[in-house]
Amino acid sequence: MPPALNGQLLIGAASSAGSAAPLRAVNPATGAQIDPAFSTATVADVARACTLASQAFDTYRATAPEARAAFLEQIAQNIVDIGPALIERAMLESGLPQARLEGERGRTVNQLRLFAKVVRDGHFLGAALDAALPERVPARPDLRLRKIALGPVAVFGASNFPLAYSVAGGDTASALAAGCPVVVKAHGAHPGTSELVGRAIQAAVAACGLPEGVFSMLHGDGRTIGQALVSNPAIKAVGFTGSRQGGLALVRAAAQREEPIPVYAEMSSVNPMFLLPAALEQGAAKIGAGFVDSLTLGAGQFCTNPGLVIALAGPALDSFIEAASTALHEKVGSTMLTPAIHAAFNEGVARLAAEPGVSPVARGQAGSTVHAGQAALFVTGAANFIANPTLEDEIFGAAALIVRCDDISQFYQLAEHVDGQLTASLFLVEADKALARALLPALERKAGRVLVNGFPTGVEVSHAMVHGGPFPATSDSRSTSVGAAAIDRFLRPVSYQDFPAWLLPPALQDDNPLKLWRLRNGELGQS
Amino acid sequence: MPPALNGQLLIGAASSAGSAAPLRAVNPATGAQIDPAFSTATVADVARACTLASQAFDTYRATAPEARAAFLEQIAQNIVDIGPALIERAMLESGLPQARLEGERGRTVNQLRLFAKVVRDGHFLGAALDAALPERVPARPDLRLRKIALGPVAVFGASNFPLAYSVAGGDTASALAAGCPVVVKAHGAHPGTSELVGRAIQAAVAACGLPEGVFSMLHGDGRTIGQALVSNPAIKAVGFTGSRQGGLALVRAAAQREEPIPVYAEMSSVNPMFLLPAALEQGAAKIGAGFVDSLTLGAGQFCTNPGLVIALAGPALDSFIEAASTALHEKVGSTMLTPAIHAAFNEGVARLAAEPGVSPVARGQAGSTVHAGQAALFVTGAANFIANPTLEDEIFGAAALIVRCDDISQFYQLAEHVDGQLTASLFLVEADKALARALLPALERKAGRVLVNGFPTGVEVSHAMVHGGPFPATSDSRSTSVGAAAIDRFLRPVSYQDFPAWLLPPALQDDNPLKLWRLRNGELGQS
Repeated sequence: MPPALNGQLLIGAASSAGSAAPLRAVNPATGAQIDPAFSTATVADVARACTLASQAFDTYRATAPEARAAFLEQIAQNIVDIGPALIERAMLESGLPQARLEGERGRTVNQLRLFAKVVRDGHFLGAALDAALPERVPARPDLRLRKIALGPVAVFGASNFPLAYSVAGGDTASALAAGCPVVVKAHGAHPGTSELVGRAIQAAVAACGLPEGVFSMLHGDGRTIGQALVSNPAIKAVGFTGSRQGGLALVRAAAQREEPIPVYAEMSSVNPMFLLPAALEQGAAKIGAGFVDSLTLGAGQFCTNPGLVIALAGPALDSFIEAASTALHEKVGSTMLTPAIHAAFNEGVARLAAEPGVSPVARGQAGSTVHAGQAALFVTGAANFIANPTLEDEIFGAAALIVRCDDISQFYQLAEHVDGQLTASLFLVEADKALARALLPALERKAGRVLVNGFPTGVEVSHAMVHGGPFPATSDSRSTSVGAAAIDRFLRPVSYQDFPAWLLPPALQDDNPLKLWRLRNGELGQS
Repeated sequence: MPPALNGQLLIGAASSAGSAAPLRAVNPATGAQIDPAFSTATVADVARACTLASQAFDTYRATAPEARAAFLEQIAQNIVDIGPALIERAMLESGLPQARLEGERGRTVNQLRLFAKVVRDGHFLGAALDAALPERVPARPDLRLRKIALGPVAVFGASNFPLAYSVAGGDTASALAAGCPVVVKAHGAHPGTSELVGRAIQAAVAACGLPEGVFSMLHGDGRTIGQALVSNPAIKAVGFTGSRQGGLALVRAAAQREEPIPVYAEMSSVNPMFLLPAALEQGAAKIGAGFVDSLTLGAGQFCTNPGLVIALAGPALDSFIEAASTALHEKVGSTMLTPAIHAAFNEGVARLAAEPGVSPVARGQAGSTVHAGQAALFVTGAANFIANPTLEDEIFGAAALIVRCDDISQFYQLAEHVDGQLTASLFLVEADKALARALLPALERKAGRVLVNGFPTGVEVSHAMVHGGPFPATSDSRSTSVGAAAIDRFLRPVSYQDFPAWLLPPALQDDNPLKLWRLRNGELGQS
């Protein structure tokens, strides 16, 4: 049994019963409702959480790097300390297997610890100092720049990462690292998991002596509570991972505000894989089997799931299709995250199957639970794909479409035709050099991450990762939502002119007490 | 006589007559129209410029740092080479004096040269390399990140900087430095100045052997041509400096697009000056005189013009007001940029004078030209200011309002009450330490640049400058439009996973051929 869940909202240091209609999680493996009921927030609850966040902002953003880093590490430790109860509850609510959730917990905790390191390094502050030139005509003042936190951030938990992209996930970790208080709208599919993690953060806030408004967590409907949150003047940025429809609704809500704010919505991507001819010739069977592993991993419920395969028609492609079909026939469907996601997957597969010019290639095996997703693979021709834009719509789950090209020129056409993506993969060998080089510029324009001879699932949390990309992959291609650079989303620069020493923030003081890398008159150094 | 102006649009390498109704510049000193007539663009012209920009993009963004830097320097040299004709035409069209325009030309040219240095340095690329960890479970791939250009950028020339924030101004220079082609919508007030500078860029594109679509320049109305430009799918970002109304219209046009794009609109700011009590006590007369110099500089037509003075009621403030009044009586009005700006200034002054609780303090002298702006200074009480939000509306020109506080608590109230600003200034001495420290957090939240004992006019082009700030000062507080960091607005990160050496861009190759500062496994270095 998990620790007692009280089903309440976490507003600052308090637990609060809320007053709107309660919600319950559903076990997607059985379709049964799970106890307890969770209070949902009223618009007044949203306002209270935002006011507390606003009140906490100046104090929180002024915390010393060590204090802020220790807070992030305390959250990580508190999550670890929940123990198996967290994994059990998350399994119950998400249908995901234990090993996957344990791995995801590790990622969540490591992410928080990476951001603790980022905060201690201080490179994100972008500190720059331009010395005064009093003799110049006109005199140049002393100018010093650092980045400060944007303000309270609204974070929307994702369905597909109940730990790593939800309450204490990448958006929350990077916003807290930047110095922004966070108000989370928990995802309705895993309210119990959310409560456990939310309490871990709430306890860390208290243990670190921070103002209570640094963190709040609300349950409720995206259309009412989500909109109220994004519309609240205290909120200065939004982090979201989910559907295109959901993301665009938040973008529109933000556009209604008097003050525009950044909305970082990570939405839909079909992650095209381009199989270049020589590589396909040499490795059709191996690529086919690897592709099916990536396609069916976690029931295909990854933003980076490979939903589109582009290759030249011919015997090598036939071998690829044969290998993929054989592999797919072995794959037993596993439980999808929610009944609604499962239904949408089935509808998407049926819709794709009914499109003219689209032929079925293979299906996986049906799973043993009520909401198991049965993997599906289709094929079509390049001209048909280009003529019918709906063929590019993401089907969330293990469904993919192979696009058969008649000639190489269609590779270029397709690279230009596809929407913005989180990833694009090139399978190549040295004999494909000329084509790879010629395709790369288009792929750079279309995707946040370009892979060679690899499958897109598996997103490393590191410094050089980009999990982002042009619309509709995200609503703002200028940033990443995974990895150290995610902190940049929640910062803005401020310049300090002719400040006396006693008024300068430590990051900008002459003797560099934080030992930052700083740009001094345009030259990087640690002085 | 300036070189012959042909009044045509510059679309790629061509001059084109356009086909919409022509426009003419007006000499604001006389109200007379100036020859020649300038063609305005049709929506088809806009589309053609955008298509060319799109076609030029991959080639242009792939230019080596040295080639791109040389191009920026060539533009600078071509502008210098226009000689006095540029200054003469700009004087005629803007009413600004020769010395000011010569200074502005220097700034424009230095700005281009600064960005050439920024391009050569390559720090803006944010290069990061994370080594593969093949033994780890799961294995970590080799990941490398660099920033690439966003795509073609639409730039709207500003009325108040016919050189430094127009055709080859800061937005254009930073976008070109980032690797983005630029389509400029020239400001209708100085089409001849724009043509001269536009031809200088067009010639540099040709001389450097770049694709013609790297630069185009159109004349036309903001409502039709501007909207068509912002709506064109080829355009990936917008730079604008002007009124709040104009900026918000572009923000709204961008929000109608299917693909959201960043709009960097720099709009309105009243640049509050907080005169702390001990500083005012010690220097009322000096601050008063300096304030009037800043207020009336360039007929007050600066984004950073100080329009709001906040001080404690009492004899020291009375001395400040007396000194400011004396100084203002000596100031002779100078020609404003356009008849419309002059009319709006007069209306704004009349409206402010009519507001309840607002009293006139002093006027400058009327100028000798038909569109000279007569400076105006008013005073009101803090409670009245807070109760009447229209008192905070920017009046573009030399008009300011002194807000008299009854006690120190009203400083805090006002700091929280004011809108987002480009700048906020603190006048202080050491005895004001406690108050300055307590006010600073609010000012950091409200402004992009905080000054001590200085007037906000005069914006340095350097590394630590921020010319930006929270709404309504700009539509996106995460960046600056002046200084080296302005390049960041036009970039997005791309991650390269497991690339063979022969496919890696130079910025990310093992041997670091560009000698960049790079983050290697999180550590900065030049390897």
